[in-house]
Amino acid sequence: MDKLDALLEKILEAVEEKKLTIPVGISNRHIHLKQEDIETLFGKDYQLNKLKDLSQKGQFAAKEVVTICGPKSIIEKVRVLGPARKETQIEVSIGDCLKLGIKGKVKMSGDICETPGITLIGPKGTVVLSKGVIVSQRHIHMDEEDAKRFGVSNGDVVSIKVDGIRGGQYDNTCVRVDKSFTLECHLDTEEANALGIEPNSKIKIMKK
Amino acid sequence: MDKLDALLEKILEAVEEKKLTIPVGISNRHIHLKQEDIETLFGKDYQLNKLKDLSQKGQFAAKEVVTICGPKSIIEKVRVLGPARKETQIEVSIGDCLKLGIKGKVKMSGDICETPGITLIGPKGTVVLSKGVIVSQRHIHMDEEDAKRFGVSNGDVVSIKVDGIRGGQYDNTCVRVDKSFTLECHLDTEEANALGIEPNSKIKIMKK
Repeated sequence: MDKLDALLEKILEAVEEKKLTIPVGISNRHIHLKQEDIETLFGKDYQLNKLKDLSQKGQFAAKEVVTICGPKSIIEKVRVLGPARKETQIEVSIGDCLKLGIKGKVKMSGDICETPGITLIGPKGTVVLSKGVIVSQRHIHMDEEDAKRFGVSNGDVVSIKVDGIRGGQYDNTCVRVDKSFTLECHLDTEEANALGIEPNSKIKIMKK
Repeated sequence: MDKLDALLEKILEAVEEKKLTIPVGISNRHIHLKQEDIETLFGKDYQLNKLKDLSQKGQFAAKEVVTICGPKSIIEKVRVLGPARKETQIEVSIGDCLKLGIKGKVKMSGDICETPGITLIGPKGTVVLSKGVIVSQRHIHMDEEDAKRFGVSNGDVVSIKVDGIRGGQYDNTCVRVDKSFTLECHLDTEEANALGIEPNSKIKIMKK
């Protein structure tokens, strides 16, 4: 029976361990648009068309893409995400910023205060923004039940860890708790690639 | 005198701390070529032309660039580094691999065993490689004196750390000790950007 107990304990440990892993969502560059800018870029009374649902409820990748133009170069076919937001926000990587010729600023989504501007070009018009480009601060979405399980609260800043040949740890990862959220850690492509993270990878929150 | 002692101690601590920081070299995609491939790409008896010296003694960025072609897309103007090596090796990021349509493999420079191939196009010819593309494993170059100071040996695998809004830690960083080496931690652009590292940033080796 000792052997069986030990085996059961190992299985339970593995189950507990699995409960504490978090799936990763890898964000490529994308844009959230306010309705006014949607209409300038795509036409009067234009509504975004859904391409596919995203993991966070109500959010979707739209069929629409725009060109973003910095002082140094442009990036074409940048995906628009829907639905329309209160403010237009462009989320790019630091590599994209270097390419575009703008100084990237790491910010939590929704905070575009003191961020660089950029020019957006759509099929029906151009929007010249004086601000709105962010490099998204890494963050974890979760609902209240998940928060309890992980022992964290909305606004907490945690470190996350991943194993493997490119394994390591990212500090300053914001926890965002809302009953509408689906458990997912959002990293940009550079953050994912630098730790060898792939779409089906899982991360863990480091114990404090 | 107590205050002066405390101040002196703080200054000494800061000096010791500074001694244990390591400058970072950020590697963009590049190619090392063997002489035979140099001649296929650029012409018979061709010699690479130096654009500028690199931090490691004898190594240089050449004026020459080539186009690398994967099954999905191509990347133009990839810098050749000199001098010629025994084997041709292409160092790219995981993002580059996704763009080219090849499966990136993290390897120490010099180890191209079981790596994907690629096609190189130069002004005078094309080289079709069956292997040679690596995603370089992060590593630190240092001489024997540095190794003693950091308490590490050639072949050690350490974790490195950086502070800041994108701060964090990378495990599996190889230590390479040789009397010809200049102290420098080599990261690719994605690794540097993901930790918010810039050309003048310093990293530290984590204590074991």
